[in-house]
Amino acid sequence: MAPTDLARVDFTELVPEPVPFLGQAAYIQLEFFESLARSVATAPTLTSKEGLSRAAGVALRKHHAFIAELRRLGVEPVDVMAPFAPAADRFRQASAGADWYELLLGIHVTSGMLDDYFARLAGGLPGEIAARVRGILAEDASSEVLHDELFAAIEAQPGLADRLALWGRSLVGDTLLIARSALRASDSADRAGDVEPVFTELIAAHTRRMDALGLTA
Amino acid sequence: MAPTDLARVDFTELVPEPVPFLGQAAYIQLEFFESLARSVATAPTLTSKEGLSRAAGVALRKHHAFIAELRRLGVEPVDVMAPFAPAADRFRQASAGADWYELLLGIHVTSGMLDDYFARLAGGLPGEIAARVRGILAEDASSEVLHDELFAAIEAQPGLADRLALWGRSLVGDTLLIARSALRASDSADRAGDVEPVFTELIAAHTRRMDALGLTA
Repeated sequence: MAPTDLARVDFTELVPEPVPFLGQAAYIQLEFFESLARSVATAPTLTSKEGLSRAAGVALRKHHAFIAELRRLGVEPVDVMAPFAPAADRFRQASAGADWYELLLGIHVTSGMLDDYFARLAGGLPGEIAARVRGILAEDASSEVLHDELFAAIEAQPGLADRLALWGRSLVGDTLLIARSALRASDSADRAGDVEPVFTELIAAHTRRMDALGLTA
Repeated sequence: MAPTDLARVDFTELVPEPVPFLGQAAYIQLEFFESLARSVATAPTLTSKEGLSRAAGVALRKHHAFIAELRRLGVEPVDVMAPFAPAADRFRQASAGADWYELLLGIHVTSGMLDDYFARLAGGLPGEIAARVRGILAEDASSEVLHDELFAAIEAQPGLADRLALWGRSLVGDTLLIARSALRASDSADRAGDVEPVFTELIAAHTRRMDALGLTA
């Protein structure tokens, strides 16, 4: 497989409904925040705590920026987010892993795929919202710190790479299911076939992310 | 006891060392952030989650603002914070309580007292730092949301008031010990006697905070 050879898919064919799109995006950032905050609380060193606390702050800012977009549309954010909570909560628990390193890889893999996915899907939103959503998702404070923490740990701990490679692979299916539910929520279920090439791109980006850690995806 | 009758103490007699002051203040905000993030993760409703997430964001901003002040002084924040971590970690665990309501009251009582204390102590810092530190601590997003959550819960749940009154009283001693250690860290142990009237004011403010919840302090 040479995933990087794939043509870039024009994703603006898919037209998500703004309100459920923003509601799910907001709630997912809150989940990333909760996972990052947990990684701060359980970090083995103060230096790790410090780096991860910045990533947690960025996820929280993204969450609040999506909340602000929902208010701008005149809807109550809590009501809009509520339907997405059960599946997203299960997803966060399922990707939390068995220890701090699995927690970190869980955030790295799932936020890497979903931020990318939501940014692509945003292309189909109405004019200005599309640009603002892409702006919100463009701020990335977590991937570098997560990569660096994981890279250092994998170098230092023999055997960790094998375990994390397995763990990373196991996260992809659930993450794609959350991505697919974003389309269903937007009443675009009938267009779901259009999204397959995008999933292929997300998996390709996942493979590159794992490769960068020396892990077989 | 009529604590509100006490004259306001001129706290600028106490002259804290900027570096340890900022280090401890930074680390304590990180602890408040961790506790607030935990309250977000375990909140019973999405509305509560939403309100508390803003408070968590503010504590994190305060933490990062203190980190920025330390960098401005040319020191490595992690090195400066490290000596305060063990006592502060124990303090956070001791004030976490047995359930979500005790966690909330723990944050309300300890952050109420310590933010006030550090803001007063800041008066003795050199010129511009004093003003900036007071500016950092002036942002308060947590006391209102914590008060409102606790007030509603106390009204709704018979018996909760008695348990929380007891819990609130038990937090004061440990909080004052952390406050006192802020002076020791600044090599102002010999001036510690000057601080007693301030402690009396902190306890008076604590009493008002508990009164506002209908709890006997």
